[in-house]
Amino acid sequence: MARPRRIALLGSTGSIGRQTLEVVASLPDRFSVAALACRGSVDLIVEQARRFRPALVALDDAGSAEQAAGALRGTGVEVAAGPEGVARCAVHPEAEVVVAAVVGVAGLPAVWQAVGAGKRVALANKEPLVVAGHLIAEEARRTGAELIPVDSEHSAIFQSLLGQRRDAVARVVLTASGGAFRDLDPEQLARVTPRQALAHPTWKMGPKVTVDSATLMNKGLELIEARWLFDVMPEQLDIVLHRESIVHSLVEFVDGCVIAHLARPDMRVPIQFALSYPERFPRPEPAPDMAQLGSLRFEPFAPERWPCVGLAREALAAGGTAPAALNAADEVAVAWFLEGRIAFPQIPRVIEEALAAHTVQRGTSLDALLAVDRQVRDFLEGKQETWAA
Amino acid sequence: MARPRRIALLGSTGSIGRQTLEVVASLPDRFSVAALACRGSVDLIVEQARRFRPALVALDDAGSAEQAAGALRGTGVEVAAGPEGVARCAVHPEAEVVVAAVVGVAGLPAVWQAVGAGKRVALANKEPLVVAGHLIAEEARRTGAELIPVDSEHSAIFQSLLGQRRDAVARVVLTASGGAFRDLDPEQLARVTPRQALAHPTWKMGPKVTVDSATLMNKGLELIEARWLFDVMPEQLDIVLHRESIVHSLVEFVDGCVIAHLARPDMRVPIQFALSYPERFPRPEPAPDMAQLGSLRFEPFAPERWPCVGLAREALAAGGTAPAALNAADEVAVAWFLEGRIAFPQIPRVIEEALAAHTVQRGTSLDALLAVDRQVRDFLEGKQETWAA
Repeated sequence: MARPRRIALLGSTGSIGRQTLEVVASLPDRFSVAALACRGSVDLIVEQARRFRPALVALDDAGSAEQAAGALRGTGVEVAAGPEGVARCAVHPEAEVVVAAVVGVAGLPAVWQAVGAGKRVALANKEPLVVAGHLIAEEARRTGAELIPVDSEHSAIFQSLLGQRRDAVARVVLTASGGAFRDLDPEQLARVTPRQALAHPTWKMGPKVTVDSATLMNKGLELIEARWLFDVMPEQLDIVLHRESIVHSLVEFVDGCVIAHLARPDMRVPIQFALSYPERFPRPEPAPDMAQLGSLRFEPFAPERWPCVGLAREALAAGGTAPAALNAADEVAVAWFLEGRIAFPQIPRVIEEALAAHTVQRGTSLDALLAVDRQVRDFLEGKQETWAA
Repeated sequence: MARPRRIALLGSTGSIGRQTLEVVASLPDRFSVAALACRGSVDLIVEQARRFRPALVALDDAGSAEQAAGALRGTGVEVAAGPEGVARCAVHPEAEVVVAAVVGVAGLPAVWQAVGAGKRVALANKEPLVVAGHLIAEEARRTGAELIPVDSEHSAIFQSLLGQRRDAVARVVLTASGGAFRDLDPEQLARVTPRQALAHPTWKMGPKVTVDSATLMNKGLELIEARWLFDVMPEQLDIVLHRESIVHSLVEFVDGCVIAHLARPDMRVPIQFALSYPERFPRPEPAPDMAQLGSLRFEPFAPERWPCVGLAREALAAGGTAPAALNAADEVAVAWFLEGRIAFPQIPRVIEEALAAHTVQRGTSLDALLAVDRQVRDFLEGKQETWAA
């Protein structure tokens, strides 16, 4: 057996980060940790560092880094601080796979570094591709970096495309569970609480992603990611509702054949695939058993019911800085909803207002995209009072 | 665009043969016909030869060949006779793909020739792999011949395995529609007529295969084929009932992922794939639409209800000449049922009697396997009176 594959994990204390370490711990002959990074969760990253013994640990927050350095004194684990520290993890020479599991646009600079260094990047962080998909895809082609999606839908598409001719793809269909509120009517939707939004029917995920699942913005962002991950045109991308979250996506070919990927709704499955690719290693739970499941149900996706998907499609069609504006507005709107400032149906309205106020620029740099991100956040901060719940 | 791919079609006048020519006719820039062969359907093969202008036509029956030669005089199409003539089609130097679409063990010698010549063989003819799977797999490895399955289930498995690590396969699950009689109780089964057996709920196929679908012997034979096509162990092969015939098979991997192949139940889809592989060309009908289908249902396979599958599994486990004996007995039993000599539930009993009387030999040659085929037929002919309906 080859020596364990070395992993750098950015965002180790979040939901995906912790599940990534569960996978690493379950296959100690296959995976080991080269570097860990998080924002400021000192206690947890110190515990992780003691257990997995990375060469390097980075905390974005300088004060937290100092605390962690104290706690890890004498362990041989180096501690680095700030965005520079996180960037050192992203390009760590020992790392064969960089897992990008930061939530939000905050993860973009480190992903950019890893791609620039030609790394294999296991991408759980949606925002880099949403905000700067065209730039990242171009940079990956230039450096030979590989993007292996961690998201269950994109992992499914990636796996369904293995060994297939790309020019034979007719349509890529993302499945959507429909989120926590798939059966509520507009009146009920107006009254839902953050606690209800965080109770996803099939998936265990972090709060931002879970609210995005309830608005289906998650699916909108996934359409944008799929555009860049698989080099497919927006009009080739579609959505179908599938409540059981067993079929994670489907790829249709020009000859009428469809390849689909199925698995239990457990993020550790696509995480492990992203780490092990192109190999596959055994997991404790078997594959879903069709006869036991009985049936897989599919329903048409109703765009009028989920305005966030339409907003994402518009931003993708507009191109340039539009997806960056969409993403920033969604992060603000979801935060406001979780803080109880706005009601659930106001999330798409906040985003719509931000997009309407944004002038799309084309052919932009990473800095310009990050500037748009800040502008949109500032714009919405200034509007906060008009959106009081 | 490259010049059209040249095809030799063995069994051109049967159900798969005619559908293969429909596919060729629908894509004249992609496919053309190098050779055609059939047993003795003079009128149809002459019509096919006039339309598709092969270099060579062969009829197994010498008298029919003479008639065809008369009808094709002056067309420039050469006509050959007998098994030698069919063999010339199977190894035709212009043929880039040999479609083996003969029904029954009669197709074995020509498939053996094509594999020996290192051809790419699009295999619709089940019996060569059932009877002589270990020999053909070995010969294909030696000559570099490629076996591309045409059967929908095996085409699905083949497509699901593209780009995947073979050592990561945990289980291969063949779907079964359940055939014409899937909902009948034993009393009703005892009274079914050949006409009822030939009315398959989802597939348009020839009579032998359709009766085999009703007894589920078809699925038993497919297990044996899959054993040799994909080099998987018998205990890795499973069956699940799936009435809609949309999911054509599933491959489970050790990491809990499943890749499935879906398509409309139309044999022209896997036929075209076998001709176009590794490319895919557009077909007039789009892929099945999940939202329109609504649901895909799966039920456990009940082996006690379908004794033919158990008999096939026993023959596969016994190895050597056992599958040849199984296959010969099934051909005889199905013929007797179609002639009204035996009732439907007697089909597995006839096969069981033949297998009980057969002494399994190992490490056999092709000639020894064909001798077993004749012995079993002779044995059953001698027993015919005891099985009078």
